[in-house]
Amino acid sequence: MRIAELSTITGVAVPSIKFYLREGLMAAGERTSPNQSTYSDSHVARLRLIRALVDVGGLSVAAVRDVLAAVDDTTMPLDWSFGIAQAALSRGAAEQVPSATGTGDQQIARLLERTGWRVSAGNPGIAMAARVLDSYDGLGHPGLSSTLDGYSEAALRIAENDLDAVAAQPDRAEMTQVVVIGTVLGDVLVAGLRRMAQEHVAHLRYGASVTAADTTG
Amino acid sequence: MRIAELSTITGVAVPSIKFYLREGLMAAGERTSPNQSTYSDSHVARLRLIRALVDVGGLSVAAVRDVLAAVDDTTMPLDWSFGIAQAALSRGAAEQVPSATGTGDQQIARLLERTGWRVSAGNPGIAMAARVLDSYDGLGHPGLSSTLDGYSEAALRIAENDLDAVAAQPDRAEMTQVVVIGTVLGDVLVAGLRRMAQEHVAHLRYGASVTAADTTG
Repeated sequence: MRIAELSTITGVAVPSIKFYLREGLMAAGERTSPNQSTYSDSHVARLRLIRALVDVGGLSVAAVRDVLAAVDDTTMPLDWSFGIAQAALSRGAAEQVPSATGTGDQQIARLLERTGWRVSAGNPGIAMAARVLDSYDGLGHPGLSSTLDGYSEAALRIAENDLDAVAAQPDRAEMTQVVVIGTVLGDVLVAGLRRMAQEHVAHLRYGASVTAADTTG
Repeated sequence: MRIAELSTITGVAVPSIKFYLREGLMAAGERTSPNQSTYSDSHVARLRLIRALVDVGGLSVAAVRDVLAAVDDTTMPLDWSFGIAQAALSRGAAEQVPSATGTGDQQIARLLERTGWRVSAGNPGIAMAARVLDSYDGLGHPGLSSTLDGYSEAALRIAENDLDAVAAQPDRAEMTQVVVIGTVLGDVLVAGLRRMAQEHVAHLRYGASVTAADTTG
C-alpha cells in the first residue's frame, strides 16, 4: 500500500508517519520509484504500537525508541526486555536527586526487608518510589507513607498478574511484546482502575460521589 | 525573604520562580520597593508543592494550575477535590476517542457489574482504563485484558489505603492537600512498587534478575 492508504487504515496523519520514518521508529517502505514507497501490514502493526505508546502510554519519542529496540531484538532474554521497558518508562524519576532531608531510600530499604522482596539495586522502581516518599516528607505529609504496606501488597498482586499474562504467550516474540506493552500501558490501566475504586470506596464510606463531572453537571 | 533566598531554600532557580509567579501558580510577594518583593514561608511551601507536582508527578503547568485551584479552595467539599485532582491527571486519556473496534468500554461496564463498584459515568478512570483495553485489542493482544480482575482487586486495596490516609488528617484543609498530593504522586508510587514486585515475582518464577542495570553492569 502507499503511504496515503497506510494513513487511512491507521488513522495516523501522513506527516506523522514521515516523522516516525525519519526518526527511525519504523523501517522504510519498499522503494518503487524515486518518490514512492509501498508499505505492508507490518507497518500497520508498527504504527499502532507507536501510537499506543505515545497516546495511551504518554511516552516521549526517545522512550518509544528504547522500547521498540527491546521489541525488535527477538534474541533478547525476556528478563532484559522487562528491564528495558521499565527503564524507558522510569527515566525521569531515576534521574532525580534524593532530597537531603528525605527518608525515601531508607523507607524502601526497610520495605524490602519487611517483605523479603528480592530487588536489585538498579531497579528503576526504587528511585520512583523513594522520590515520592521524599516528596511526602518535603510537603509536610510524611503520614502519607502509611499507604506503603497496602500499596506493596497491591503491587505484588499486579505483578503476579503481569507475569501470568507473559507466561500465557505462545512464543518468545509474543512474550517480549506483552512485557513491553503490559509494562507501558499497565500503569495507565492501574491508574484508571484506582480512580474508579476511589469513587466506590468514598461512596461506601461517605455516601458521596467524587467525580469532577458530578460537580459541574 | 528576597527571591534569591527563596531560590536557595527551595532549590528552584529564580527564572522558574518568576515563571510560576507570571503563570499565577503562586501569590505575588509583598512589594517593598518598585523592584523588590519579599516572600514568606508560605511561598516556600507552595514552591515545593509545585515542584513535586511537576517533577515527581509529571504534570503540565496547565494541570498544576487546576490541581492548585482545588488545594486553594478550602470551602470545596472533599469529594470535589478528589474529582478535580483526578480530572487534572486524566485529561489526556479522557479526551481520546474510543476505537471503533475496541471493546474497552464494554469490558469496563462488565467489570463494574461483576464487582458491584458504584462509579459515575463521568469518572475519568473509565476512559483511561477503556482506552488501554482498546489498545490491547488493536495491538493484537486482547489476552492482556485477563489482568483486569487481578488489577481491580489491587486497585480496590490501593483506594482503601488512599481513603484511610485522607481520613487520618486533622482538618479539612489537610485532607484536601492529601487528596491532591496522594492522587498525583500515588500513581508514581504504585508504578515504582510494581516494578520492584515484577522483579521479585520473576525471581521466584524464573530465578532471573529483570533490571536493565544488571544487563549493562
